[in-house]
Amino acid sequence: MADVNALVTQLNALGISTAPVEHAPVENNEQWTEALKTVSGLPSSYVLTKTLVFKPKQPKSDPIAPIMVVIKETTAANAKAIGAELKFKDLRLANEDVLRDIFQTAKGSVSPFALGQVAQGHIGNVRVVLDKALLNDGVKIGFHPLNSSRTVFIDSASLKKYISSIDGLEHVVEMDFTAVAAPAAPESKASKKPAAAATKPEEPVGMTKPGMQTRKSENFSKWYQEVVLESEMLSHYNVSGCYILRPRSHFVWEQIQEFFGAGIKAMGVRNCYFPMFVSSQVLEREKDHIEGFAPEVAWVTKAGSKDLNEHLAIRPTSETVMYPYFGDWIRSHRDLPLRLNQWCSVVRWEFKNPQPFLRTREFLWQEGHCAYFNKEQAMDEARAILTLYRRVYEELLAVPVIEGEKSEKEKFAGGVTTTTVEGFIPETGRGIQGGTSHYLGQNFSKMFNVVVEDPSPSAGAERPKLFVHQTSWGLSTRTIGVMVMLHSDDKGLVLPPRVAETQVVIIPCGLQAKTTDAERSRVNDACLTVEARLRKAGIRVETDLRDIYTPGFKFNHWELRGVPLRLEIGPKDISKDQVTVVRRDNSARESVAMSNMEDSISLMMIAMQNEMLAKARKTMDERVKMVLKWEDFVPTLNSKCLALIPWCEREECEEQIKNRSTRDVMADEPEDEREPSMGAKSLCLPYAQPQDPPIVQGETKCVQCGQNALRYALFGRSY
Amino acid sequence: MADVNALVTQLNALGISTAPVEHAPVENNEQWTEALKTVSGLPSSYVLTKTLVFKPKQPKSDPIAPIMVVIKETTAANAKAIGAELKFKDLRLANEDVLRDIFQTAKGSVSPFALGQVAQGHIGNVRVVLDKALLNDGVKIGFHPLNSSRTVFIDSASLKKYISSIDGLEHVVEMDFTAVAAPAAPESKASKKPAAAATKPEEPVGMTKPGMQTRKSENFSKWYQEVVLESEMLSHYNVSGCYILRPRSHFVWEQIQEFFGAGIKAMGVRNCYFPMFVSSQVLEREKDHIEGFAPEVAWVTKAGSKDLNEHLAIRPTSETVMYPYFGDWIRSHRDLPLRLNQWCSVVRWEFKNPQPFLRTREFLWQEGHCAYFNKEQAMDEARAILTLYRRVYEELLAVPVIEGEKSEKEKFAGGVTTTTVEGFIPETGRGIQGGTSHYLGQNFSKMFNVVVEDPSPSAGAERPKLFVHQTSWGLSTRTIGVMVMLHSDDKGLVLPPRVAETQVVIIPCGLQAKTTDAERSRVNDACLTVEARLRKAGIRVETDLRDIYTPGFKFNHWELRGVPLRLEIGPKDISKDQVTVVRRDNSARESVAMSNMEDSISLMMIAMQNEMLAKARKTMDERVKMVLKWEDFVPTLNSKCLALIPWCEREECEEQIKNRSTRDVMADEPEDEREPSMGAKSLCLPYAQPQDPPIVQGETKCVQCGQNALRYALFGRSY
Repeated sequence: MADVNALVTQLNALGISTAPVEHAPVENNEQWTEALKTVSGLPSSYVLTKTLVFKPKQPKSDPIAPIMVVIKETTAANAKAIGAELKFKDLRLANEDVLRDIFQTAKGSVSPFALGQVAQGHIGNVRVVLDKALLNDGVKIGFHPLNSSRTVFIDSASLKKYISSIDGLEHVVEMDFTAVAAPAAPESKASKKPAAAATKPEEPVGMTKPGMQTRKSENFSKWYQEVVLESEMLSHYNVSGCYILRPRSHFVWEQIQEFFGAGIKAMGVRNCYFPMFVSSQVLEREKDHIEGFAPEVAWVTKAGSKDLNEHLAIRPTSETVMYPYFGDWIRSHRDLPLRLNQWCSVVRWEFKNPQPFLRTREFLWQEGHCAYFNKEQAMDEARAILTLYRRVYEELLAVPVIEGEKSEKEKFAGGVTTTTVEGFIPETGRGIQGGTSHYLGQNFSKMFNVVVEDPSPSAGAERPKLFVHQTSWGLSTRTIGVMVMLHSDDKGLVLPPRVAETQVVIIPCGLQAKTTDAERSRVNDACLTVEARLRKAGIRVETDLRDIYTPGFKFNHWELRGVPLRLEIGPKDISKDQVTVVRRDNSARESVAMSNMEDSISLMMIAMQNEMLAKARKTMDERVKMVLKWEDFVPTLNSKCLALIPWCEREECEEQIKNRSTRDVMADEPEDEREPSMGAKSLCLPYAQPQDPPIVQGETKCVQCGQNALRYALFGRSY
Repeated sequence: MADVNALVTQLNALGISTAPVEHAPVENNEQWTEALKTVSGLPSSYVLTKTLVFKPKQPKSDPIAPIMVVIKETTAANAKAIGAELKFKDLRLANEDVLRDIFQTAKGSVSPFALGQVAQGHIGNVRVVLDKALLNDGVKIGFHPLNSSRTVFIDSASLKKYISSIDGLEHVVEMDFTAVAAPAAPESKASKKPAAAATKPEEPVGMTKPGMQTRKSENFSKWYQEVVLESEMLSHYNVSGCYILRPRSHFVWEQIQEFFGAGIKAMGVRNCYFPMFVSSQVLEREKDHIEGFAPEVAWVTKAGSKDLNEHLAIRPTSETVMYPYFGDWIRSHRDLPLRLNQWCSVVRWEFKNPQPFLRTREFLWQEGHCAYFNKEQAMDEARAILTLYRRVYEELLAVPVIEGEKSEKEKFAGGVTTTTVEGFIPETGRGIQGGTSHYLGQNFSKMFNVVVEDPSPSAGAERPKLFVHQTSWGLSTRTIGVMVMLHSDDKGLVLPPRVAETQVVIIPCGLQAKTTDAERSRVNDACLTVEARLRKAGIRVETDLRDIYTPGFKFNHWELRGVPLRLEIGPKDISKDQVTVVRRDNSARESVAMSNMEDSISLMMIAMQNEMLAKARKTMDERVKMVLKWEDFVPTLNSKCLALIPWCEREECEEQIKNRSTRDVMADEPEDEREPSMGAKSLCLPYAQPQDPPIVQGETKCVQCGQNALRYALFGRSY
């Protein structure tokens, strides 16, 4: 019905009188506005419109669900807001095919009147969104009816009348586009996504490609946000700085819990649970300690409608929660060592930008708290825990780390020595603290009076009181973020097999429209048989038999979600008594005989796990540069490396290094807003000290200040 | 130095002048007061004193640490408070031996002046506590110096001068006994113990008997407090209503996590973690639901020193936390079922009396939240979870429970049907809710718009939106409290073997002073060999080789802590190639051949586990009484039973039952303050309905109101 006259007749039949205005053909709204200036017979006041057609991201096999959006010419169509309103994900402008096949019209000629000519069987899937700004009484609304050289004016009542006359059209909503710029209500799906994403202009029409839009090398921090969200590791939450750990990431955490939990149990550590609340009085007992945490403490001040007499902090860490009770439980040296651990969440209300997994206001962790008779025992334990942390990173997450001690400036508030494992993210050249294990000395035991009598025979009858030596150590869900940053790629998440909830996904392949039902069943049955065999062998496996999706769609789906191995089984594989296996990390493809596939697949997973670690370690080794003169220091950082320098270990010098590495950069080159040229800090004093050249005490000088160097220190920009 | 003259000389040498007053010998302070009335030469004003000697609970091998407490005659010596002040546990009055051997004096003649004659080598271990009420300037203080027929008066300055003259005496503190009745500062060890315990009168001198002071049959609620504290299941915490879960109870929780976690995993439930904070706006979305929780919600209003714009609730449960996101994740019927679970803590700031494990302001639990396409699937799951809850109670904790549905009045706020497992505590005759699994219907999905399109072929192209059917279900650390209440006894905790952190404790026996070192080693080595064998067989075992304690002490120690089996190994056992095994629950003693002891001990643990359940079930069965007329209802409750009645299931009737069962009792008998005669409520409508007589619809009448009965309901007083 490209005939305007037919439309006018149709409108008249509905009691709507209108006479189209003719003008020169126009290609955009600017031309339209101009063209109307040249004609007479216009309404005294009118608004012009634009009509856009979107389609949601949806399985190819689903019927197309076009969304016609009729808005005032000056209104910006907010695809996210429309999607949220209609519960559709990722709206895109529909392509010409949709306009042609469903609305029987072409780009530039779309108007609400195209609803009268929707192809058979499609009208039930069409949704119409009307801009409330158009629907004021009395004002005439101008449309291009069906072609671009005529304009029809009708009022809002008539528009609604026309729309309600369309047989089978069910889904019509009115939207207030002026409201969608402001953040939506908390329950709105899109509300917490970054504002930039919400107002992103519509993207060119194309195949709806699931998942990743950003390349890792292009915009690392945007890429990271996309990976963790699209892979279903986590979701945004309507309290800023808090995130939802979805099952795929929680499973990784459970693997860490299992491994580390068994490790500390073998050492004699027992699990417990202390309350999350700390009274302000207790929290403030250890002054150095609380200074480090006070600005980030969340306070409960009310219960129900009553104000609490004493405000209660939510634990940012549990030293001051636990240690008042250590005195109760430690009565004699025979009660030592006391070794406790708890798995819990802690709250640190940081005001810096939150980062999924890395900097969140509530996070999961374990915290161990032990008391020993002497320093040696306590230090030994702190190191033994650090070794377990290294093993979590290396053996489970395939993340290489460097073990060492923190500098005075970077150590735990209130402790004596902080030991640490430090990771490295090549794309940004930054270090990242992985987990810390502290020797607290007697600072806390003195504060909380945790003492035993000296049991040594030489102590005599008076037995002086000895303060116990303490440790504390914590590992958090930050581990998961480090793993994601290091291994994932432009296709999405890459999970090391040991921590993947699904280690193997089986996808039937090679089935076509002409494939017989019998053949189809044979392939699906083969998939299920393989699944059963692998499951029996202890492999975490899933089969994707959804017949509405193509194999290609499924490949993307599971790659995005990081499944380590994909098994393809098609008629050819069956005839050769094999399966085809594709590795997620390097896309290597291999055929594996059915007969001993359990072993082959287990071995492939082990190889993948080891090679992921080896590859990451090689990169890290290449990027840790020994720097022996200050002129090389900043250029080393700028080349996305870490610097290992002979260092004096003075706090003042660390401050100077930070300042000089910040300033130098700003003077030399333009600031990159995504990677601010932050100053470098000491990451650790590595336990593995370089020997070539070795530090010669009293001779080797600090690279920055020229005073005597004590050890090599690892410096870098960091998270 | 029983010579008063020598004392006077000594005091004079210190510049303290005093003349002893002679009177008739006295045996107590009343006689003393009377005797002084008969003599002249007294100061114009004076206070009399008493001097008590305590000793703490401590290993026998430790040097005795006597505590001399010098207080005004009218002051009550509060042993708990003194212990808290001095960091000693369980002070008892010292026996005559201590007075004789250390102070070289006798009962009735103890005064501070005995400090001058402490036996050699002991003075460093003596602590002195002075009542501040004595230390007012100018008032003379009267003591019995060394014998009971003389009184010496000196002033407080002189007393202090004397005390500071004692060579080697280091530990002297002044205490304000008027203050100790009030709760002490939070960090004080004793502060949170019940006031009753804190002011308990001193007990007779005797061997320090660890642990239980109260019998289960005597004062159930005091006994319960003692069991959970003395067995080291939990500790009080300085935030009221919060408790510390110590390793022994946390281990039980871990066993529940492991069993239940595997159960739900097999059903397809996945673990996740949602933030603990809920914005007020979201929390208040479901009105019925929030009405149930609002008065108990803890609110975070500040972070660091900043007030938050929006106050944040700490989750009391996570329906409104999670369901806004279900709409994001459920896009089509293919996304169903969505099955999530999280292990976390929740906060419900109840103002009722807290009870360890049963009613605490923060507690650990799991909460499952699932969405299904239809009601049947959702109900099936709710029941399958209830079955797992029953199995946790019965198979792990040896606690029999009754499965059923909650009445309208007792069901979950905002849900449709609540299914429940209900336990029973014989000593109090009360029911106790064990765990609940709710069918939420579509209430929440309508509130949070969690919908899918109708996928049925008959739905046509328009595919109406269908709201999902939801369930939620939770099991908390309350489980542990129920287990303790049911099984523990006058000797302390009794743990079912499946959940005991230590299942077997090995104690070397039959060693005496004359035992040779070789023999001693042989016995200890045998213990360690047995330990290694049992550990290898997967049994959680510990050996108590501490040679400073007697076997009897160790028996008490481990019985108090609930260890299921005690293995005694002595020379006789070795010679007979056997071990002696004693069961914690019934003290049954058995000899077991070394050769196949792993099997024997495993079987004994299985038997113990089963018999604990069977015994409890028998008691419960006897105490669930069918009641067919109202006159029997309250007497049944009063005989510590639960009543199973034909019931109309009307809320109004339930209200009447509660009122009538409260009033009737109060009229009939005096109120027992420890067991208030609360009204009965419905515990559940049991799934196992009695058949003799059966409910005949339209004929059987409700026992209370006479309307038609629908089902049997279980009523009782409850926790």
